[in-house]
Amino acid sequence: MYQTKPNINIERLSANFDDLADIGATPEGGVNRLALSHEDLEARSWLAHQFELAHLEVQDDEAGNLSGIWRCQNPDAKTLLLGSHLDTVPNGGRFDGSVGVLGALECVQAIQEAGLDLPFHLEVIDFTDEEGCWQSLFGSRALTGNLKDNYTYGLTDRVAPFRAALFRAGIRPQDISHAKRDPETLLGYLELHIEQSYSLDDTKDDIGVVTAIVGRTTYQITFHGEAAHSGTTRISARRDALFGASHFIIDVYDLVRENFPDGVINCGNITVEPGSFNIIPSVACVTVECRHSNREHLQQMETMIQELAQEIADQHHIKVSIQPSGQMPVAVMSGQMVMAIEQACQNLNVSNRRLHSLAGHDAQSMSSFTPTGMIFIPSVNGISHNPKEFTHWHHVVTGVEVLLETILLLADQSG
Amino acid sequence: MYQTKPNINIERLSANFDDLADIGATPEGGVNRLALSHEDLEARSWLAHQFELAHLEVQDDEAGNLSGIWRCQNPDAKTLLLGSHLDTVPNGGRFDGSVGVLGALECVQAIQEAGLDLPFHLEVIDFTDEEGCWQSLFGSRALTGNLKDNYTYGLTDRVAPFRAALFRAGIRPQDISHAKRDPETLLGYLELHIEQSYSLDDTKDDIGVVTAIVGRTTYQITFHGEAAHSGTTRISARRDALFGASHFIIDVYDLVRENFPDGVINCGNITVEPGSFNIIPSVACVTVECRHSNREHLQQMETMIQELAQEIADQHHIKVSIQPSGQMPVAVMSGQMVMAIEQACQNLNVSNRRLHSLAGHDAQSMSSFTPTGMIFIPSVNGISHNPKEFTHWHHVVTGVEVLLETILLLADQSG
Repeated sequence: MYQTKPNINIERLSANFDDLADIGATPEGGVNRLALSHEDLEARSWLAHQFELAHLEVQDDEAGNLSGIWRCQNPDAKTLLLGSHLDTVPNGGRFDGSVGVLGALECVQAIQEAGLDLPFHLEVIDFTDEEGCWQSLFGSRALTGNLKDNYTYGLTDRVAPFRAALFRAGIRPQDISHAKRDPETLLGYLELHIEQSYSLDDTKDDIGVVTAIVGRTTYQITFHGEAAHSGTTRISARRDALFGASHFIIDVYDLVRENFPDGVINCGNITVEPGSFNIIPSVACVTVECRHSNREHLQQMETMIQELAQEIADQHHIKVSIQPSGQMPVAVMSGQMVMAIEQACQNLNVSNRRLHSLAGHDAQSMSSFTPTGMIFIPSVNGISHNPKEFTHWHHVVTGVEVLLETILLLADQSG
Repeated sequence: MYQTKPNINIERLSANFDDLADIGATPEGGVNRLALSHEDLEARSWLAHQFELAHLEVQDDEAGNLSGIWRCQNPDAKTLLLGSHLDTVPNGGRFDGSVGVLGALECVQAIQEAGLDLPFHLEVIDFTDEEGCWQSLFGSRALTGNLKDNYTYGLTDRVAPFRAALFRAGIRPQDISHAKRDPETLLGYLELHIEQSYSLDDTKDDIGVVTAIVGRTTYQITFHGEAAHSGTTRISARRDALFGASHFIIDVYDLVRENFPDGVINCGNITVEPGSFNIIPSVACVTVECRHSNREHLQQMETMIQELAQEIADQHHIKVSIQPSGQMPVAVMSGQMVMAIEQACQNLNVSNRRLHSLAGHDAQSMSSFTPTGMIFIPSVNGISHNPKEFTHWHHVVTGVEVLLETILLLADQSG
């Protein structure tokens, strides 16, 4: 189909990567770009400027998703979305999300420079709050019309700060639902991302072709005891919420290890009230996350975890309340996209294997909305969400080349 | 010695108690008057006004201790300090501290109204930050010249907010050391307080005569693991700071229960970094407090707790750092004061018994500085640091009457 073979510009990609990593850089070599924070807004502003420099049409939707669009000559053509996210977890890594957005931009520029007119529009997209600083996969859920109930689903006491953050970013809560697209306008969605786990690093494959993404449920599990003077209250009379929560944290890991060898559990935070050294804790709220790539097993995990919390509360004469704070079902990638990515790898003579994603991604929201594919590149030692997150540069380049080849194959198929 | 027998005005005492309890009142019936907070400053302002209404000389010292002074005719006389504190723990009770300050004020007014000239000055004092919102026993430590190193001892990262709070309250950090008194000017210190424990409520005695106060040490025990993506990091590769801290919390209670039956332990707070649902916790900082009325046993407890923290860190391949954040030695009350209080109870035909205080008090700082006595009244079910803290009104009245009688006995002895 194409006359001039497009080539990615490695120096430009590398310069963009370094410039972006400076925004919110931490002393440990990581990045703080929490969704809707000052640093996140600075990164979006920087990205919009890159879009302009590349002659892309800049577009903000009602959920804050930022796009750079390169239109083909046929105005009625569908759009192929390419992207990921620029937000990070607190003190996260430089590769998570960034590689997908910058790689997509580089592919579009390579196609421009080769003078190709594809049979679809290309849209590079930076999704809002993939990481869930406020609401996991917020932007991609909004685009697919998949924000449950309303935009504050499961947030409870963080509604007001979330609203403030949205307004600060120019997002009007009442308009978020208008970000929903018509799937008929889309050809599909491709996301390049680091694996964030160790399987590619273990087997030394260059590319992972994602076939499914684990489902994930998060809870706030709150133990309620009774505040009392720490010095004067009999041990037997204490109803210590933190003591109960500590037992829960230990037992929940045992539960998952024994019953769900393929499941994942994390207790990522705990907050205590009143939190004074001389008062028995009255409230201890544990943030619990569970993941599984099998829908039925995920549900069994959730049930057993809730039962465990209740048992521990009963044992310690305290109460427990369980509040779901997020839920993403198991997601299956498009067979067409999986095969296109595998074909691209074969064309480029790049070693690859199929795998499941143990992490959540915007591709998870997109997969039930439009044909979705996901390309993984290796993470050294599987470390992610950490300043030590690292991917060898040649793997980044290979990933972008596979993304570009996949786009060109889709163009051949559509043309 | 006295012509007219002074009598406390129960209605006035009760009205003052209710007015004070309104300042910082919480919906649960408790009080929020954290030291140097807006509510605490409002309570001080209210108390200064009560001092003025009672024709007392109002005095603020350089550590924010607020006094109302009633001078006797002999300008060279010593001063008998009477007091406690108006600050509370978060959502604490209405009786803790307040009873001692208001009871002291009532005694002075009763003595005024009886037209007595005692052989010593009377000074009602509200000590700053008894509860340790910033620094336990801050005011009484400053008055006795017993603030270790400097006023920010053990605070580490809370120095700046503490300084801001001090300035807001009109306390200049560089002047705090000037709050130190000359012990030669003092006759002694008497403190009326609720027991905050259950021994008087159990034995149905009206008054507890305190002979010693437990020593107390507080630590920040911080476990350091490694942040990582929760979904993609092998369980075996995790270095989870919160998981280690949970084991510590459970084991430290076992350690104290098994080895120190008279010791007290509390883990009152824990904070986690980065604290996100999808990141393995890298830091978990536990606030640990231990108390014992035997100096040697307290030291053994501290050593064993630190060893336990190190063992658990080693087991879980994480690190631990231990930072002392407060220390009060075991305090012994003055024999003269103990006997005067017992004699007062006998004169008034009030049942009483000697006991140790399991809670810390300003009397603890004062005891090594000036002859110090402490009068306890019962706490229903021993509940304190809780909105349900309660003392029957007739016990409050009896406590104030015993305080008054003790002052008069000391006057007889000094006259």
